[in-house]
Order: sequence, then C-alpha cells, then structure tokens
Amino acid sequence: MNKGRLEAFSDGVLAIILTIMVLELRIPEEPTLHALASVFPTFISYLLSFIYVGIYWNNHHHMLHSVVRVNGNILWANLHLLFWLSLVPFATGWMGENHFAKATMTVYGVILLMAGVAYWLLQSLIIKSQGDHSLLKKAIGKDLKGLSSPPLYLLGIGFSFFNEWLSGAVYIFVALMWLVPDKRIERLLDQRD
Amino acid sequence: MNKGRLEAFSDGVLAIILTIMVLELRIPEEPTLHALASVFPTFISYLLSFIYVGIYWNNHHHMLHSVVRVNGNILWANLHLLFWLSLVPFATGWMGENHFAKATMTVYGVILLMAGVAYWLLQSLIIKSQGDHSLLKKAIGKDLKGLSSPPLYLLGIGFSFFNEWLSGAVYIFVALMWLVPDKRIERLLDQRD
Amino acid sequence: MNKGRLEAFSDGVLAIILTIMVLELRIPEEPTLHALASVFPTFISYLLSFIYVGIYWNNHHHMLHSVVRVNGNILWANLHLLFWLSLVPFATGWMGENHFAKATMTVYGVILLMAGVAYWLLQSLIIKSQGDHSLLKKAIGKDLKGLSSPPLYLLGIGFSFFNEWLSGAVYIFVALMWLVPDKRIERLLDQRD
Amino acid sequence: MNKGRLEAFSDGVLAIILTIMVLELRIPEEPTLHALASVFPTFISYLLSFIYVGIYWNNHHHMLHSVVRVNGNILWANLHLLFWLSLVPFATGWMGENHFAKATMTVYGVILLMAGVAYWLLQSLIIKSQGDHSLLKKAIGKDLKGLSSPPLYLLGIGFSFFNEWLSGAVYIFVALMWLVPDKRIERLLDQRD
Repeated sequence: MNKGRLEAFSDGVLAIILTIMVLELRIPEEPTLHALASVFPTFISYLLSFIYVGIYWNNHHHMLHSVVRVNGNILWANLHLLFWLSLVPFATGWMGENHFAKATMTVYGVILLMAGVAYWLLQSLIIKSQGDHSLLKKAIGKDLKGLSSPPLYLLGIGFSFFNEWLSGAVYIFVALMWLVPDKRIERLLDQRD
Repeated sequence: MNKGRLEAFSDGVLAIILTIMVLELRIPEEPTLHALASVFPTFISYLLSFIYVGIYWNNHHHMLHSVVRVNGNILWANLHLLFWLSLVPFATGWMGENHFAKATMTVYGVILLMAGVAYWLLQSLIIKSQGDHSLLKKAIGKDLKGLSSPPLYLLGIGFSFFNEWLSGAVYIFVALMWLVPDKRIERLLDQRD
Repeated sequence: MNKGRLEAFSDGVLAIILTIMVLELRIPEEPTLHALASVFPTFISYLLSFIYVGIYWNNHHHMLHSVVRVNGNILWANLHLLFWLSLVPFATGWMGENHFAKATMTVYGVILLMAGVAYWLLQSLIIKSQGDHSLLKKAIGKDLKGLSSPPLYLLGIGFSFFNEWLSGAVYIFVALMWLVPDKRIERLLDQRD
Repeated sequence: MNKGRLEAFSDGVLAIILTIMVLELRIPEEPTLHALASVFPTFISYLLSFIYVGIYWNNHHHMLHSVVRVNGNILWANLHLLFWLSLVPFATGWMGENHFAKATMTVYGVILLMAGVAYWLLQSLIIKSQGDHSLLKKAIGKDLKGLSSPPLYLLGIGFSFFNEWLSGAVYIFVALMWLVPDKRIERLLDQRD
C-alpha cells in the first residue's frame, strides 16, 4: 500500500479543517470598526487553532516522510487523529463566541489532549511497523515534546475549571513549544538521503 | 486514461464530505458543559458517519489499487458512488438533531444502502474491465461482506419503522464488520508486487 | 510550466463545488418523511447540478490530457471557467428552494451558458497553443456537442420566461447529450500512446 | 524535505478559500430577478476576491517552481501567507453585504496588505535559502510590482476613511497590475530547462 494517497487525503482534510474554521468568524452586522471589535475574540481563537493545525500538518509531514510502508493499523490511527482534529473548528468557534469562558476552555483542552494522544498512537504504530531499526524512533529520541504535551494539556484542562486565562496560557505555551519544527527528524532524514 | 486524477478527485470529495459533516455540530448557545450535552446525539451520529466514510475511503483505496485502466463507465460509476456518499452529511445532521428519530433512521439506511449498491456496481465494472483474470475478482473472493451489507441495510431500514435503536444497532454492526480492512486484497497485491 | 498543479487545483475546486452544493439541502425541521418531501425539489436540482459538474470534471480531464504545455492564457482561461462553475451551487440552491420558479431557471441557464462559453474559450486557447497539428483539434473534430450547447442554453433561457418546465427539459437534454464521455478524444489518445 | 506536499497543501487551502467565498452569496428570498439584484454588490466583491486569490495561486505556483529545497522557515512563512488569505472570504462577505461601506474597505485593504507583506516575506526567505545565485532573485529583478503593492494598499486604506470608491479603484488597479503573470520568471525557467 503506498503512502501517497494517505498523505494526499490527510492534507485534504487538514486543509479543509484549517479553512472552514474561518467560517466561524461571523460577519458583523454593522459596517463599523466598532462592530468589528466584537469579532476579536473569535479572531484570536482562530489564530491559535490555525497555529495548532499548522503544527500538526507540519509534524505529520515530517513523520510520514520516514514511513515506507502503510498498513491497515496506521491507516486507521491516521483517521483517528483526523477525527479529533476535525473537532477543532467546533471547539474554536464555541470558545471564541463565548470569550474563552471556562467550559469552552475545558472542551478545547480535551480535544487537544485527544489529538495529542492520537498523534502519539500513530507515531507508536509507525515505529512498531519499522521494526528494531526504526528511523522514526531514532529521530524522535526521547520525544520530550511529545511526552510533555499530554500532561500540559491536562494542566490546562485543570486550570480551566477556575481560571480561563491560566488555561489559555498553557495552550499557548504548548503551541509555542511545538512551533519549532522537528529539526532532529530533518537532520536524520538528511543523513539518510 | 490514468487513474491518478480519479483517485485525487475521489480523495478530495471524500475529504470534504468527512469534514463538512462537522459543520452539523452546531455551537451550543450557552458556554456550559450542560449545554454541550445537547450536542451529544449529533456527536454520536458524526462519529458513526465518520467511520462509514473512512471505511469507504479505505476500501476505495484498496479497490482502485488493483485498477490499471480507467474507462468512461468506471468514471461515472465512481461519481455515482460519490453522489450517494455526498448525502451522508445531510442524513447524519438530520438524524443527530432529531435524536435518531425513526424517519431519520430510515433515510440514513436508504443512503447507506444506495452507497453500498453503488460501490458494488463500481466493483463489478472494474472486474468486468479486467477480463477473465481479474485481480480484483480474485481478491474479493466470495465477497461475503459486500454481499451481506445490502440485506443488512434493508433489515436496518425495516427495523427503523418500529424501533430506531434496533435499526441503529444494525448500522453499527455493518460498520464494525467493515472496519477490518480487506486483508485479502492487500495479500494478493503483495504477491503481485 | 507543468500542468500537474493546474489539474490538481482544478480538481480541488471542482470537488469542493460538487460537495458544498449539498449544504443547500437544508435539514427538514420535523423528523418525518412528510417533512423530507419538502426537500425533494432541492434534491432534484442538486442531482442535475451534480451531473453537470461531473460532466465538466470528466471533459476537463480529457481535454487537459492532450495538453503538454500550460501558458498564462490557458491558466487564466481555466480560472475563468472555474469562476462560472463556482456559481452553480448558488443557482442550484435558489432554483431548488423556489421550486424551479421562472427567474431561477433563467439564472441557472445563464450560468450554464457562461460556463459553456468559458469551456469553449479554454479549448480554443489550448488548440491555438498546440499549433497546426493540434491533437485536441483533431480529437474534437466538428465539435457538434460543444457548438450546439450555447444555442441550446439560449433556448432554455428563452423558455424560462414563460414556461419553467420547457426550460428545465432543455437543461436536462444538454446534460444527457454530454453524459457520454468524449470517445473520440479517448480513441485518439489511445492511438498516440 | 520535498516541496510537493507543500504545493498540494497550499493548492488545497487556496481552492477552498476560492470556493467557500461563494457561500457568502446568500440566496435571495424571492424568486425574482429584482430580488437577485440585491446580491449584485456581493457578486462584485466575490469577483474581485476571486481574481486576487487567482493571482496569488498563479504567482505562488511560479515562485515555488524555482524552489528546490523547502526548510522550516519557508514552511511557516507559507502558512503565514495562507492565514491572511484565509481571511479574504470574511472581508469579502462583509464588504459585499454592506455595499462597500468605508469600514469594510479599510479591513479589506488591511488584509490585502498583510497578505502582500506575507508574500514578500516568503519570497525573501526563498531567495535567502537559494544563496548568492538565487534563480528567483534573478527572475523577479527589481520586483516593481511586489514593491509597489504595499504602498498602493496603504493608499487604498487611506482613501477608505473618506471615499470608498477611490479606495476600491486602488484595489482594482493593483489586481489588474498583477493579472499579467510574471513573464520574467517563466522566461528564466524556460532558459534553465
């Protein structure tokens, strides 16, 4: 089974997720800059989610680059990841429209957590499929970012019950932590080529 | 005629179907976890349809892998399949918003049935185009899953007139039955490569 | 300039046009088969437009197959075609929601006409770019279907001012006329390969 | 890192941006040509934005053609460009629905300006990555169009505070200026091939 179609399909879904999120930016009723200000929270939530989906696309791109063979498990683990990511526009819109109210921050965090777990699962299945000398396993090394994200999301979810801003700060921190692309994978793939 | 563009187009349509379904998940009016609970039935219907579209994508992927030459009939049979699948978001939203009311379960089943028939038609045309030594024909063998799905959908449709939960149970059963990718096709293609 | 990205982009736009049309199928308010009947006209208009967009994708596929080199004019003529096709969901929804009222049939015909003209323009530019021995020119021959479509659309538009059903009959007739893929192009390309 | 997936993803996002804009064309409530006239401003704003997104796709296509190697910075600069372009449907709808009211022209201009800056940034990073003998740098030469666009957008934004038509005239002028594809890049790439 070739991975080209898996990549193309994932790219398609991620591109659509990224773009339909902008539909949550409702057009203000009045044509004034003042009315526009009411869209500001939704804009900020859109920006944060755009960065998250961008990070996932970017890392997904790197991760699949090391894959030679796709099996049925990898295929479904990939769909599982796309499922949780497809809920990001919903959580983003709810969060923005309600000015980052506590409950919306909880749900946003839960979806990020589930996507993070799904990503980790996909990564594990790819490593397993590559056997003892897995290029991906070597590339991610101790996988500090991957392993620290779920606890951080849990922290953000915990914060969301009493302070939405602390919760948001954690989600922004995780995004910034990931914003740097995985140089290690890039380096190792360069060595191989 | 090359099959690359047929695959790319089908992937595009399937990716969009998968993703616009999430637009049926309406943002709750209140920012509370209690308000979120009202979205739960739509979430469940989304999950089921996501799995169904995922299965179609997966099997479509396998089926086309065995195709060498695309003719006009195959092209239109493929569009015919995409037509029925494109109605899945509509049926899913209607079903979820009405908490799986009987009439919505009937319609959901009819669309699954039509998609199943369209898939079988496409499969038959591909087999016919491959002649006596069709790789696909050999791969699907007795095609138990393909042949048992339409009667099962009919059963689900029948149930939907008096009990929606029995009907839903049948639709979930068919999904689970298909969730396992078609190992036989994979195996045969491996032998060929 | 390679044509691969032009094809991929056109496929993307056509796949999205095809799929967002289904968003015009509004979910009925009541969960009854009776309420579903109210969606029937929109369903029919969706079916007709799905076939039209399918025909365009199919013929576009064939036409570009004969192209070796894409220049700036071809690129913009292609975008021009996509522009008119992108208005099909709008016209389809308006037509279906108003049960094929006369004014909506006029607009539907005008958009079909403009798309037909845009397709003819694109075809002419490709033939011109291929010089004296244009494969595409040879393939389309007298181009009876291409040349007869605009007058037929005009006829449909004319009918739409006094009888919407006559108008609709013309649009259905043109769709059926095109439903048969262009065997001539296929045959000639086969000879070349 | 190969550029194929970057192109495919950008194409996907641009295709979706182009197509979801048409969703802002709301279906008129009455089935009359008179009611249709009320959609005319939205149609015009859609046409202008369609041309802008078409220009970006076209130039993006040319620019990436000269790229051999994609690094992390280029990847994020590309996402940054897509982010601003993804706001075009929002600004387009707001502008059309409010008949090009002053505030909406300001916002439209700001988004065009940010997209222009993001494009310039991406171009600069590509040139930097290509080193001293950058093909892209040679191709764009003095880059008159690229350098004159931001000041022109600023002019349009300035005009928008007291006259929306002058502002619109500037945005149309910039679009027309760019409509001609970058012959210089084409010529140089031809020489290389």
